[in-house]
Amino acid sequence: MKDIAVYIDTVCRNARNACPLISSRSREAKDSALLAMATLVAEEKDLIQKENQKDLALGKKAGLTTAMLDRLTLSDIRIQTMIQSLKEVTALPDPVGRRYDERTRPNGLAVCRMRVPIGVILMIYESRPNVTVDSAALCLKSGNCVILRGGKEAINSNKILAELFQRALKKAGLPEYAIQLIETIDRFALDLLLKRDDALDLVMPRGGEELIRKVVQASTVPVIKHYKGVCHVYIHHEADFAMAKSIALNAKVQRPGVCNAMETLLIDRKVPESFIKELLDEFHRQQVTIRGCETVCFLDSKAEPATEEDWYAEYLDLILAVRVVDGLDDAVGHIAKYSSSHTESIVTKNRQVAEEFIKRVDSSSVMWNASTRFSDGGEYGLGAEIGISTDKLHARGPMGLEELTTYKWVVVGNGQVRE
Amino acid sequence: MKDIAVYIDTVCRNARNACPLISSRSREAKDSALLAMATLVAEEKDLIQKENQKDLALGKKAGLTTAMLDRLTLSDIRIQTMIQSLKEVTALPDPVGRRYDERTRPNGLAVCRMRVPIGVILMIYESRPNVTVDSAALCLKSGNCVILRGGKEAINSNKILAELFQRALKKAGLPEYAIQLIETIDRFALDLLLKRDDALDLVMPRGGEELIRKVVQASTVPVIKHYKGVCHVYIHHEADFAMAKSIALNAKVQRPGVCNAMETLLIDRKVPESFIKELLDEFHRQQVTIRGCETVCFLDSKAEPATEEDWYAEYLDLILAVRVVDGLDDAVGHIAKYSSSHTESIVTKNRQVAEEFIKRVDSSSVMWNASTRFSDGGEYGLGAEIGISTDKLHARGPMGLEELTTYKWVVVGNGQVRE
Repeated sequence: MKDIAVYIDTVCRNARNACPLISSRSREAKDSALLAMATLVAEEKDLIQKENQKDLALGKKAGLTTAMLDRLTLSDIRIQTMIQSLKEVTALPDPVGRRYDERTRPNGLAVCRMRVPIGVILMIYESRPNVTVDSAALCLKSGNCVILRGGKEAINSNKILAELFQRALKKAGLPEYAIQLIETIDRFALDLLLKRDDALDLVMPRGGEELIRKVVQASTVPVIKHYKGVCHVYIHHEADFAMAKSIALNAKVQRPGVCNAMETLLIDRKVPESFIKELLDEFHRQQVTIRGCETVCFLDSKAEPATEEDWYAEYLDLILAVRVVDGLDDAVGHIAKYSSSHTESIVTKNRQVAEEFIKRVDSSSVMWNASTRFSDGGEYGLGAEIGISTDKLHARGPMGLEELTTYKWVVVGNGQVRE
Repeated sequence: MKDIAVYIDTVCRNARNACPLISSRSREAKDSALLAMATLVAEEKDLIQKENQKDLALGKKAGLTTAMLDRLTLSDIRIQTMIQSLKEVTALPDPVGRRYDERTRPNGLAVCRMRVPIGVILMIYESRPNVTVDSAALCLKSGNCVILRGGKEAINSNKILAELFQRALKKAGLPEYAIQLIETIDRFALDLLLKRDDALDLVMPRGGEELIRKVVQASTVPVIKHYKGVCHVYIHHEADFAMAKSIALNAKVQRPGVCNAMETLLIDRKVPESFIKELLDEFHRQQVTIRGCETVCFLDSKAEPATEEDWYAEYLDLILAVRVVDGLDDAVGHIAKYSSSHTESIVTKNRQVAEEFIKRVDSSSVMWNASTRFSDGGEYGLGAEIGISTDKLHARGPMGLEELTTYKWVVVGNGQVRE
């Protein structure tokens, strides 16, 4: 325990000390570290895969499922993708140093805000080792120091990747401690980290809801998180029904296992029964299990009755909760009660109804005539995404490089004093 | 204990339910409630002062200092100021609903961010009852629900003010539970509130460092805070010395008891001794006690030697720590170690040195050739200030109406689905 305490303290100090050495460095220096990392990953592919094999062997022994082992595997293609994302992050503009919101005060003071790095970020994640490289790259590009705490299944893969990144930092003349991996899987190490609000500025946990809740409970460091995605599509009776069908199907079946897939479909009571039946039939043809309200079960003999839990459920599967609602108020009320504040979409031709929906639905993304599947940093033009926030503060929805920065006020005078 | 638990749960539910009823209401509705409150405060001045007298009588019995009793007193002038600030908040633009950061994606999706209220805000504060009205006014104007938890000394004054605000809300057709006061001073009530991350979106504690640390320790709700203001002025050797003198004096003596007053003066070793002596003499003439480093004590016989604690101290008094530093690196290093990240200012004629200082100093406000006393929402043009943040996330420095909002992504399509 004492060793771990000393270790965590050292990691925190190293990060804090590296902060000023990275936060105001030029884009060129940061990009050159990113490109050096891309080269190193290519050069050391065999070594990376050797370490990855250790994790896979241990994983098999530990009885990990085939799906879990697959997520853990650093195949040639995955390593190629890793190199590609490093190059893509290099190509993104650097948000640090941008001045905005400029104004000159009556006394002549020039006041503006300037984007600056957040400081030290703790990333907590599970399984996939490519998250190590992707997260570190985005934190580095935005001038932050990062402490990585990956899953125990990937510890050997993560170690070699972090080590290579530290070599890349050194090559670029940047402090190697800008990127650090927690090399112990002891839970006590995490507990200690979460109390270090003197050294850490932000914690971003990614993974299961239970893990994230534990982090929120234990942490005195600010947390940005995303528990789950219970996304809704609301088909209004003034919708273009062909469009509604295409959006609803896409939102559910195109990739059901992701957080921006639709989990509950709300259909206005004024929508013609014939369309509802046609739509539900199409879902059945696509192997989707329907859990419906009373009206839905009445219209669709194959539908199972939904329970209260179904309205809260994130299935991440070919299962869909469907409810017939009495107009906009009812739809908005259902969403307010059951949504996880991730993404909701309305399909309607009525602009006024759409504007009302946009105004009243309090989720990180609100859409009109589009599939919830577009709720994504890449799709919004953020370039790359470090995570999704369903919190209210600092960042909501997809988080890119800009969301990894904060601002400071810059005030320039010529000797002004206060009366 | 059980009664308090039921009470706090009711307050939380009321706030949550009021949220959608206030968040998307028009500026007109919110302004009409603010003006109704201004009228009620004027009409019920006698009643307010009667309740305030109760607090003052209890305070005297409890042995409050004259200064504390003064802060507690709602004199005619203070009530007039309260009415005036209500009118000023009414006149401020409403940040809610503003769309920005608009872009059209290659697939035709129109994506933007829209300012929206944060939700439910818990304000924790001590003594002065006018904070009750000021905070509630700013939260209401920005479409938030607020739960007020004031100091026990002001409980009767706070009760009548909150009651009047609820009457004003009703008059304007807004939900009265948009503004609620915690009517018990039991510490258990606060503990319960701080665990309600299901109902509260933000906690803003104002007051002593110890209170704020307790809130951070206990809260699972995000906290924005400001422990203290240890502000620095750094006089570079290429400064206009007349300007440097005027800024340093203003930063210390114009109002020493506030968080943006200077606490430590850093003077470059290359600054002429004659000027350092002249400046320190002027501080002595203005009754300022100097606690200096070795060099300062050598130059100024009246200076007391500074201890390590002095560099961390927020005196809020006519005491100043003074240190001679070896150039920009040393100044920036001192600030990085001892500053509370509130406000730091450099005085220099050298633009390159100033830009370097601005880039490298990681505080919520960084100034060049201006007094730290300008670090203030009003001075920056924010209109009104609900507090100061020395945190990194969401808001830094003075927080006005815009900082009481967050954003959501709005996506408008014409039937796009994801490939």
